[in-house]
Amino acid sequence: MIERLSNYEQSSPMITKIRQRWFEIDAMSGVGLDPVVEKIPQEVWNQVGKGNIADGITFFNQKIIDATASQTVDYKINANFYSGEQGRRALKNTFDYLKKTHPEILRVCDGKFADVGHTADHLAAEIFEELDADAVLLNPYLGSDAIKPFTKYKDKLVILCVNTSNPSADETQNIPLADGTPYWKFILRKSLEEWGNNNIIPVLSATHPENLIGIRSLVGQLPILLAGVGSQGGDLNQSVPQCLDKNGYGLMISASRAILYPERQPGESFPDASRRAITDLKNNINQAKTLSHG
Amino acid sequence: MIERLSNYEQSSPMITKIRQRWFEIDAMSGVGLDPVVEKIPQEVWNQVGKGNIADGITFFNQKIIDATASQTVDYKINANFYSGEQGRRALKNTFDYLKKTHPEILRVCDGKFADVGHTADHLAAEIFEELDADAVLLNPYLGSDAIKPFTKYKDKLVILCVNTSNPSADETQNIPLADGTPYWKFILRKSLEEWGNNNIIPVLSATHPENLIGIRSLVGQLPILLAGVGSQGGDLNQSVPQCLDKNGYGLMISASRAILYPERQPGESFPDASRRAITDLKNNINQAKTLSHG
Repeated sequence: MIERLSNYEQSSPMITKIRQRWFEIDAMSGVGLDPVVEKIPQEVWNQVGKGNIADGITFFNQKIIDATASQTVDYKINANFYSGEQGRRALKNTFDYLKKTHPEILRVCDGKFADVGHTADHLAAEIFEELDADAVLLNPYLGSDAIKPFTKYKDKLVILCVNTSNPSADETQNIPLADGTPYWKFILRKSLEEWGNNNIIPVLSATHPENLIGIRSLVGQLPILLAGVGSQGGDLNQSVPQCLDKNGYGLMISASRAILYPERQPGESFPDASRRAITDLKNNINQAKTLSHG
Repeated sequence: MIERLSNYEQSSPMITKIRQRWFEIDAMSGVGLDPVVEKIPQEVWNQVGKGNIADGITFFNQKIIDATASQTVDYKINANFYSGEQGRRALKNTFDYLKKTHPEILRVCDGKFADVGHTADHLAAEIFEELDADAVLLNPYLGSDAIKPFTKYKDKLVILCVNTSNPSADETQNIPLADGTPYWKFILRKSLEEWGNNNIIPVLSATHPENLIGIRSLVGQLPILLAGVGSQGGDLNQSVPQCLDKNGYGLMISASRAILYPERQPGESFPDASRRAITDLKNNINQAKTLSHG
């Protein structure tokens, strides 16, 4: 593994952590831990007591983590789901559990934050110190003022929502600038060149595979968080081959609902169903890798 | 007051609420309730007990509210400051207190959120139902998918971060599109025309008064949240006159640190100092109104 790692240029610690994990488990699959209280299985409430929201979310997440960790490169935890006092307790518990049981897996705090000044400093301290997340998802609209309070943590990683996979991203991100460059590509170049300490990687979308043609000439060997696979209609076979890095990895591709609430087979426990779902995701990604470009 | 209100076109309930407040107190001043634990005065901890973060923030906010309400159009509460379990309890307590004691004042949940799909639905329910905020600050980068889950609450208000006051907004928001329009102006037009139910108003910046020339021809009589006054260097005299609506109001201008932690005069209590600070803000804005354009 060390030999293959040395085949990359020097990078920041969290990028190395991602690469090590790719090699270790030969997978690029991840899990979005975005629990919806109403969808948490009855077994969980039987265990923790009905109405105990913080413990219910925590217990559910722990079971999902135990079932999926061996095939997971990153857990992406969207803070926007962990609402109120109970939600925030579950958020902290989940980060603590991941750190204790699977320190080798990247802990990503989603939230698509963008704030500035002392608010951004406060937010960065909450995410990188209190929660001890490895990485955070940020929104580029406010420019570097909203990013640098995070990239100044040189050992941490910023994952920038450059080109998102929701349908309306077209109207705001694909619009051409005076020189014809789509706005998202301008943001991509600017952020990678100016906003970080070699600790920014982009979110790009699988829903427009044509946007990904030649993407490695823009981002070099950086990991890419590829969004929009699954429920949003992004196609792995169309998008994965042209995004691979020189070692045949290069991507983090996570699913949330498909792994948290898969259809269960008769007699199957919910963690077993989730294990089956992450296995499918892993295999589908690895299958797509074998296809040639375009 | 009713006569002056009828001088506006029909609008959504929260825009009417803002206008009523302008007339009622003849002011456009507001308060950003963004408490930093380390800056909360010792008197507060003496009262609630040291280390009791949730109660400390709540008590501090209540005292600031009591001292400033009579001169305040809106309280802008940035959720990004209310971190962890304790912070979220204080956030809920603060919204509850405002609703109970000053239902006539606009309760804005800041956070500059942008998320999509069922995450956005969840976030909107948290902010507009659990917290019962009147308005929310959102980020436009993801397009209408991130906005419509909020604007579908027709009786609530979305305040869109169109042109922010931080220095780096220049690099991402002022860049010209193919037709020469700055990106933020494209976002302004698109959002007002397509994303809402007459319940979107913009954040614009006082730091570039030249951007505000002729702004009423773009936004009509909509209220504007004018950012960047005070610590960010925006000048009231340069920016206020060209943003007034036809009744001589049209703006919400809030300060945070200047009102939460003003320099205290000998023997002055912290609420009295904050009352003095909001009075200064109100008077400075009303003074700027009397200056002619340009």
